[in-house]
Amino acid sequence: MIRTHDAGSLRASHAGQTVTLAGWVARRRDHGGVIFVDLRDASGVVQVVFREEDAHALRNEFCVKVTGEVTQRPAGNENPDLPTGAVEVTASELVVLSEAAPLPLPVDDTITASDDLRLKYRYLDLRRSGPANALKLRSRANQIAREILHARDFNEIETPTLTRSTPEGARDFLVPVRLQPGTWYALPQSPQLFKQLLMVAGMERYYQIARCYRDEDFRADRQPEFTQLDIEMSFVTQDDIIELGEELVVKLWGELAGYRVQTPIPRITWTDAMNRYGSDKPDLRYGLELTELTDFLRGTEFRVFAGAIDAGGYVGAVVMPGGASQTRKELDGWQDWAKARGARGLAYVVLDAETGAARGPVAKNLSEAHLAGLADVVGAKPGDAVFFAAAAERREAQELLGAARIEIAKRAGLIDESAWAFCWVVDAPMFEKTDDGGWTAVHHPFTSPNAEWMDKFEEAPDRALAYAYDIVVNGNEIGGGSVRIHRGDVQSRVFDLLGITPEEAQDKFGFLLEAFKYGPPPHAGIALGWDRTCMLLSGNESIREVIAFPKTRGGYDPLTTAPTPITAQQRLEAGIDAKPKATTATPGTDGVAAPVEPSN
Amino acid sequence: MIRTHDAGSLRASHAGQTVTLAGWVARRRDHGGVIFVDLRDASGVVQVVFREEDAHALRNEFCVKVTGEVTQRPAGNENPDLPTGAVEVTASELVVLSEAAPLPLPVDDTITASDDLRLKYRYLDLRRSGPANALKLRSRANQIAREILHARDFNEIETPTLTRSTPEGARDFLVPVRLQPGTWYALPQSPQLFKQLLMVAGMERYYQIARCYRDEDFRADRQPEFTQLDIEMSFVTQDDIIELGEELVVKLWGELAGYRVQTPIPRITWTDAMNRYGSDKPDLRYGLELTELTDFLRGTEFRVFAGAIDAGGYVGAVVMPGGASQTRKELDGWQDWAKARGARGLAYVVLDAETGAARGPVAKNLSEAHLAGLADVVGAKPGDAVFFAAAAERREAQELLGAARIEIAKRAGLIDESAWAFCWVVDAPMFEKTDDGGWTAVHHPFTSPNAEWMDKFEEAPDRALAYAYDIVVNGNEIGGGSVRIHRGDVQSRVFDLLGITPEEAQDKFGFLLEAFKYGPPPHAGIALGWDRTCMLLSGNESIREVIAFPKTRGGYDPLTTAPTPITAQQRLEAGIDAKPKATTATPGTDGVAAPVEPSN
Repeated sequence: MIRTHDAGSLRASHAGQTVTLAGWVARRRDHGGVIFVDLRDASGVVQVVFREEDAHALRNEFCVKVTGEVTQRPAGNENPDLPTGAVEVTASELVVLSEAAPLPLPVDDTITASDDLRLKYRYLDLRRSGPANALKLRSRANQIAREILHARDFNEIETPTLTRSTPEGARDFLVPVRLQPGTWYALPQSPQLFKQLLMVAGMERYYQIARCYRDEDFRADRQPEFTQLDIEMSFVTQDDIIELGEELVVKLWGELAGYRVQTPIPRITWTDAMNRYGSDKPDLRYGLELTELTDFLRGTEFRVFAGAIDAGGYVGAVVMPGGASQTRKELDGWQDWAKARGARGLAYVVLDAETGAARGPVAKNLSEAHLAGLADVVGAKPGDAVFFAAAAERREAQELLGAARIEIAKRAGLIDESAWAFCWVVDAPMFEKTDDGGWTAVHHPFTSPNAEWMDKFEEAPDRALAYAYDIVVNGNEIGGGSVRIHRGDVQSRVFDLLGITPEEAQDKFGFLLEAFKYGPPPHAGIALGWDRTCMLLSGNESIREVIAFPKTRGGYDPLTTAPTPITAQQRLEAGIDAKPKATTATPGTDGVAAPVEPSN
Repeated sequence: MIRTHDAGSLRASHAGQTVTLAGWVARRRDHGGVIFVDLRDASGVVQVVFREEDAHALRNEFCVKVTGEVTQRPAGNENPDLPTGAVEVTASELVVLSEAAPLPLPVDDTITASDDLRLKYRYLDLRRSGPANALKLRSRANQIAREILHARDFNEIETPTLTRSTPEGARDFLVPVRLQPGTWYALPQSPQLFKQLLMVAGMERYYQIARCYRDEDFRADRQPEFTQLDIEMSFVTQDDIIELGEELVVKLWGELAGYRVQTPIPRITWTDAMNRYGSDKPDLRYGLELTELTDFLRGTEFRVFAGAIDAGGYVGAVVMPGGASQTRKELDGWQDWAKARGARGLAYVVLDAETGAARGPVAKNLSEAHLAGLADVVGAKPGDAVFFAAAAERREAQELLGAARIEIAKRAGLIDESAWAFCWVVDAPMFEKTDDGGWTAVHHPFTSPNAEWMDKFEEAPDRALAYAYDIVVNGNEIGGGSVRIHRGDVQSRVFDLLGITPEEAQDKFGFLLEAFKYGPPPHAGIALGWDRTCMLLSGNESIREVIAFPKTRGGYDPLTTAPTPITAQQRLEAGIDAKPKATTATPGTDGVAAPVEPSN
């Protein structure tokens, strides 16, 4: 080491010692003949005092080596905000290790540059304590997770990232294969397939902090490559995975967010979550539960509600405390908000703060009796506003109310930003209707029905429940998983219901099904979205903050300017335009697509 | 958990307990009305005794759940080879969790199937203890390395795998970018560039167990994706990295191979390694050092030797102990061996076991004086053979002798297979001559000259030495790294020598050079080839054995049959045939290629 001490480690107890430090000039102040420099390294900052001329050449972000004596600062000059604030280093020797050109980006914790500039000069951005600490927190999160998993005898196993394309799922990133021109690898959307094969292989306890790839259209805060903490276990039940998930969450939040997560973490069924919060990832930091009004309003002459009720649908409401005091413009704003979400609008009444009388456009359409009973039914008080949604599809109306609930919490300032509210959402539905009247798997076709529905999911596919579970904090889904089907007869029945013929199943999932012929164990797993988890733990609002070199919109990297065109020679060599040879048949697996599932 | 105990954990102390186990039927033996089953799970094997009819249906590799009582085996029936051999479980309840079809591959530690069959049914292959233990050892190796690095305040940081192509290096795997049609990502050959940027960013201590990609032509035991333990540190010298490397090696070999590595590990200069062993990764488990004969043979009339000497080249020899007893056919075999390596042949003399007199085709061409002195000079005894190599290029002749040395050790049985011989090869040359008389970097153009050559490498580029170091065990290079250049002036001089103009440097390495304008710290690093390291630790001879799902020749996966053709729709959507748009200029980084270096 070319230093003897870390700058941030110096304390009053070091006074009198000669130390050699190495780091960066964070700030320079001239006071007559004396120059004060804040010297920063990865451990922190210490003040260095130069009495020699040579320090005049120093500029911000020069990289320097300094030898000097640690001295206590004169009384009254201590800096209590700095861990090293009791001391300073009186320099006797200075070596400039490298100079810095004028900075395109201030290395300053108080100034925030544009995202594009920050990412183009990410190596300067990361010299700031906030961005650097986010990466350090992530490293520590990895370590905490691994400690837990190794203590439980998990094996960390790497799975391939040059694998087989599945044209059915989300879009794969593709890689041309020069040695087999005309054929391509796909980058995996998750290790789902391989971790299930590892269970068939008897590995029993697998984990990996796995890089995954998904070629999706741009959405805010998406990256083409992302990371998940991927876990699979054999001979376990849903409760075992949930218990493990809770240990992970307890230790991560305990150490990294200073928050003691209470266990068991509450479990809410998927149906309850939709009914009460209009979301399958409810934010439980506040109440504002939805109220179903389908029965209460039955017989109403208001066509919007009556139409939904007659169609066997749903009418419901959510209350905005104090919402009656909103201006006309604010109330109109809700209509725009709803339209931006694709709804027709957001019906409401406001309750007069003095009299409790209902006003507003919907009030005119409701009967006296409905108006008189409304406040009690929805739990509203004088001065509140009540927002309604109605639709033939229960889920559609509930999701609108769920989104309104979140928006109400924001606008009414009901969110405790320091709170952490965890829940498991369990008992998810197995199937949902397709547009052509068939059924599709909500998760993936290997998700097991729960014990109640195991033998009868065909009787009511719309109500059949899976052993599938998501962990949610503050309205963010940070992980999810399921028990997998390991019985061939159950798998066949699920394929039948999904309208997948045995030939199609063989074609799509052949080699997994082949593996499942040889004594597959009961198994279950979970994956935590690691970028999102670390983002929340570090108190950031974008996953970019916990990624060393993130990409911007459309997968662009402002630092390297990737992606780029390739040369004609690269194109030729990679075999991009080669025609595939006729495949040589490999009995049992030929023509079989890998079910690399997009999610867990 | 659906089991109460791990099968392999049961001991005499469990006798009398009722346990529930879950695992696989490893072996079934009928003895009249009693059926003995070896039940295997990830922890090991225990014997289960069934007295009921239902066990008759069990076949190998059925997955079962068994409840029963642990009993001590009758005296004389213990199995001392099995950790559980003192007990058996008398089954009272059996549940078949899943059945197994007839096995395409025996799950048997004593039978070895073909590699293709093993990989196609890798999930059965991994039920064997050898393959399973190799993956478990690798998981433990990860953990050991991480413990060391976290104790030293390293941060584990993920770097991008969708990055920028470098047409200059080894071939990149390419990925078309749908959202920017006509442009491509490259998969990284190593995180070299990004880890150096992380040092500029002040992260100081970085590591990652990183997936890397290299599109190379087939060579035995190569995988298109591979893993390295990648490390970089700031404010350190070569000795600091070597010291860290030694701690890693000591703990890995100590715990996983039961071998105590003596430190400091011997260092040998690159030049010594070539002179003494004819290799930059010498196998030090045996002696057989080369002897240079250039001076000794000066003036010889034997044209092969004289030609090399006159050209300023090299003549040398290596002794095969007892090699005089080889048959004519064996000695001819050496010629074939040399020709297979691309040499013209391998000159030799044999020393008569009785008289010590030199015989063989070369003997005729050497003078009496040379023949008389030869045995002493090369350290040969009567009965030995002496092999010669001569070439105008010293390295060419030394490498032939180095290869002969290894072959001699094998044929003469001189290799102690239980030995571990480590060394560091240091002081590697910075440059080597190109065919057109210029110079190229032996490592990469960011490798620092050592202190001696820092200010004068231009004076004798052929002799200039770098701070570059490889760690070698038993003739395998398991890791290597270098101190990097952090001074702009030194970097410019290296580019000058390499004939890279400032414009070309900007074009090829622009954004790294840009980063280096802003106070880059001195830094150095190393990367350990993790597949090879784990292969050696596990006593295997192929890296495939320590990879969960390896590929075969040409990057083919017998399990999933990847790679595959893609559909026309995938091709269209991925923008594979799109023309790139005209690039929008990004000042400072536009048109700049990422120096993602192939090696470390």
